[in-house]
Amino acid sequence: MSSFEPVDLDFSDLRVMVLNCTLKRTPEPSNTDALMDNATAIMAEHGVVVDRVRPVDYVVVAGVQPDMTEHGAQRDDWPGLQERVLAADILLLGTPIWLGAKSSVCTQIVERLYASSGLLNDRGQSIYYGRVAGVVVTGNEDGIKHVAMETLYSLQHLGYVIPPQADCGWIGEAGPGPSYADAGSGGPENDFTRRNTAFMAWNLMHFARMLKAAGGVPAHGNQRAAWDAGARFDHPNPEYR
Amino acid sequence: MSSFEPVDLDFSDLRVMVLNCTLKRTPEPSNTDALMDNATAIMAEHGVVVDRVRPVDYVVVAGVQPDMTEHGAQRDDWPGLQERVLAADILLLGTPIWLGAKSSVCTQIVERLYASSGLLNDRGQSIYYGRVAGVVVTGNEDGIKHVAMETLYSLQHLGYVIPPQADCGWIGEAGPGPSYADAGSGGPENDFTRRNTAFMAWNLMHFARMLKAAGGVPAHGNQRAAWDAGARFDHPNPEYR
Amino acid sequence: MSSFEPVDLDFSDLRVMVLNCTLKRTPEPSNTDALMDNATAIMAEHGVVVDRVRPVDYVVVAGVQPDMTEHGAQRDDWPGLQERVLAADILLLGTPIWLGAKSSVCTQIVERLYASSGLLNDRGQSIYYGRVAGVVVTGNEDGIKHVAMETLYSLQHLGYVIPPQADCGWIGEAGPGPSYADAGSGGPENDFTRRNTAFMAWNLMHFARMLKAAGGVPAHGNQRAAWDAGARFDHPNPEYR
Amino acid sequence: MSSFEPVDLDFSDLRVMVLNCTLKRTPEPSNTDALMDNATAIMAEHGVVVDRVRPVDYVVVAGVQPDMTEHGAQRDDWPGLQERVLAADILLLGTPIWLGAKSSVCTQIVERLYASSGLLNDRGQSIYYGRVAGVVVTGNEDGIKHVAMETLYSLQHLGYVIPPQADCGWIGEAGPGPSYADAGSGGPENDFTRRNTAFMAWNLMHFARMLKAAGGVPAHGNQRAAWDAGARFDHPNPEYR
Repeated sequence: MSSFEPVDLDFSDLRVMVLNCTLKRTPEPSNTDALMDNATAIMAEHGVVVDRVRPVDYVVVAGVQPDMTEHGAQRDDWPGLQERVLAADILLLGTPIWLGAKSSVCTQIVERLYASSGLLNDRGQSIYYGRVAGVVVTGNEDGIKHVAMETLYSLQHLGYVIPPQADCGWIGEAGPGPSYADAGSGGPENDFTRRNTAFMAWNLMHFARMLKAAGGVPAHGNQRAAWDAGARFDHPNPEYR
Repeated sequence: MSSFEPVDLDFSDLRVMVLNCTLKRTPEPSNTDALMDNATAIMAEHGVVVDRVRPVDYVVVAGVQPDMTEHGAQRDDWPGLQERVLAADILLLGTPIWLGAKSSVCTQIVERLYASSGLLNDRGQSIYYGRVAGVVVTGNEDGIKHVAMETLYSLQHLGYVIPPQADCGWIGEAGPGPSYADAGSGGPENDFTRRNTAFMAWNLMHFARMLKAAGGVPAHGNQRAAWDAGARFDHPNPEYR
Repeated sequence: MSSFEPVDLDFSDLRVMVLNCTLKRTPEPSNTDALMDNATAIMAEHGVVVDRVRPVDYVVVAGVQPDMTEHGAQRDDWPGLQERVLAADILLLGTPIWLGAKSSVCTQIVERLYASSGLLNDRGQSIYYGRVAGVVVTGNEDGIKHVAMETLYSLQHLGYVIPPQADCGWIGEAGPGPSYADAGSGGPENDFTRRNTAFMAWNLMHFARMLKAAGGVPAHGNQRAAWDAGARFDHPNPEYR
Repeated sequence: MSSFEPVDLDFSDLRVMVLNCTLKRTPEPSNTDALMDNATAIMAEHGVVVDRVRPVDYVVVAGVQPDMTEHGAQRDDWPGLQERVLAADILLLGTPIWLGAKSSVCTQIVERLYASSGLLNDRGQSIYYGRVAGVVVTGNEDGIKHVAMETLYSLQHLGYVIPPQADCGWIGEAGPGPSYADAGSGGPENDFTRRNTAFMAWNLMHFARMLKAAGGVPAHGNQRAAWDAGARFDHPNPEYR
């Protein structure tokens, strides 16, 4: 593909699951929502089906089992959310920053995604293979990169592909100050944030389609089922060292 | 592609740049080298051309300019190394862990890669687009994930694709103890480390080829040159909020 | 004090608040509990009053306000827990590691402690001044230092003193394996973990007493109330630069 | 001490070692220097003797041995710097942020401090006991807290006390922009940064004096020499569990 070759801009076969891990319940306004709106607007404009929730509106139980009702919880809304995550080609996590770290809700979502990391697809790969992920971060002080590095690391560890420049965020100058959606914050006009948001949205779409077209991640060298059955995929043996 | 469809296992059109950011100069044995050997053996077995150095053997100058000799340094070997990085489809960084963090050499390599982050390819994308990256970490105590999250984050921020499960590492039980290549460490026999090493190597190869076959990352929505020239790629305008 | 001068080993005027941020509700056994037992045994042996809870047994609401019932929550047990934190000279947080990060419960506790960071003591210092903090981390894989650095940073930012070597933890060799309290894990016998646990416990006691004897942190240069009233404590003015 | 009790403001028995881990050699202006100036001005005003260097001006060799000339290096200036670190009651590290992380020079300084972590004082405690540490961070984008958490964690792990609010920093709004010392950056006028700088400087002085007056950290429960000789300081035995 040369730089002059037209790129197909219809992504209507794709689906994105958007989890805004704000601490604020609907309908309280969320700054993270405001920034995520820009990313989802780009995707929706090109046909991506957007499924979007705030986990804090649900009863998501602490634990690292797929369904905590099987482990004593009276109610656990996570299994339903997990199904929607797995129905999507793209996972977009959003989180505020508190004391330089991702929110407790975001931490919990990662824990619950991890709870299903033992599940495999029909090729014996991690169930999360063949999908792409990105992250959106807002605060008024400091911490975009630290939050993004922790979150994106977790997602690639689970099996997601992380496209180039798959995070975006906004913070103000050091110290307390207006939040992204506050009048006069400068956030919505920030050229750096806007560019990163656009690049992230497009790269998520490009890679999701590339994977869909390829039928997922090529199935050799990365199938847990095969490894457990004894395949070593040309990994040298210790005794040969 | 179904799970029964054969996968092409010849990757002889690919090239990997391996930077072992150990603090030890050649020929002192490096534990990180020993673990990286397994990853490069898999790649070499399938035709990938391996270019491998320890940056500590070179004069790499502190700074964030592409060539520090233009900024007062008498000698700077980085420009030559940077060319070799850009000649490769895959970048594999290796680093030991010191006090839970990546090595100073690894930190410096990231700084010097960052120094060229303003360069663009012929589509106006970051010069690092169209390439994939992974990381190999060794220590005897603790810190694989922290080191990997920092390193992989930097690389995706620069424009690299991070495939699923693109890191591997080995540490022993909490506290001092034998290092990876020490007799009886258990490292070379560790099934978890071996599996992660194999999966990383294969996913780096699969995604490098996928990108090469696609001619790079599709060029829409992610070109810095176009953004700077005023393209907004359907990002909503602030005033529409 | 020379190395031969006797140290007073009666700490019965001190109180420690122990928050085990496990994801497991009582009475499910917690590995973090098992390791924390060693630290609290040392403290209790020397008279420290131990107040200990698992926050997951309580209804702690997501949010960054001191009392979330004033912000729509039907129930919030945090205000009672916060009182107990403030009644103690020492705060000891315990957390498991999930995907290299501290637990969501631990993240939430930090958020809720942060919610009261605007409160001041009678000298105008942060309400957390005059107290010391440490952290205990367990996992079976990797991440003690990353978890400790995030957690201890938050606590010193709030106003806690971090004594030397104020963390301890246990993990096994890279990869899944037995947890701390599992038979044959090697955890309870690990000399490094045991030494760090002892040193942490003692340093928490020493510094808590030092602060108590001093009547808290000397009140000059660090009072938010005074700063807000215009005191600058010899900080140079920008115009003098 | 009540809030009305006078605090002694003469700290002329104290010494601070200031290591500005900028990547820029003298005399190139350093933004980190500009911010550190405020902290050292407060200390100097109250008699603290200030010893200040930029390690990048020296030949500090990669490695984790106290003196790398004993391990093949032709020259290594670290041993002399290490002596000056140990002559000081306070260690103040400064670092710029690159890609959200501390500088390679700062990473190297931590590695070299760690190289002497086996040395003990005359009580058998870590050689760094009885000292306090803080950190100053500058960038134009994001990362103060992540850099501070990594750096402060390393220092407490080595044996330094971390007083309350022992870090300060400045960054601008998300994205590239003026650096701290650039005209119009807003950095020198930032009230949050100024307050944190003052509080840090004062808390470093208060705790350094408190430790000096106490003759160091009370010597019980934290002496490596005693532990290695068999003392257990009331740590429970595994078999009692």
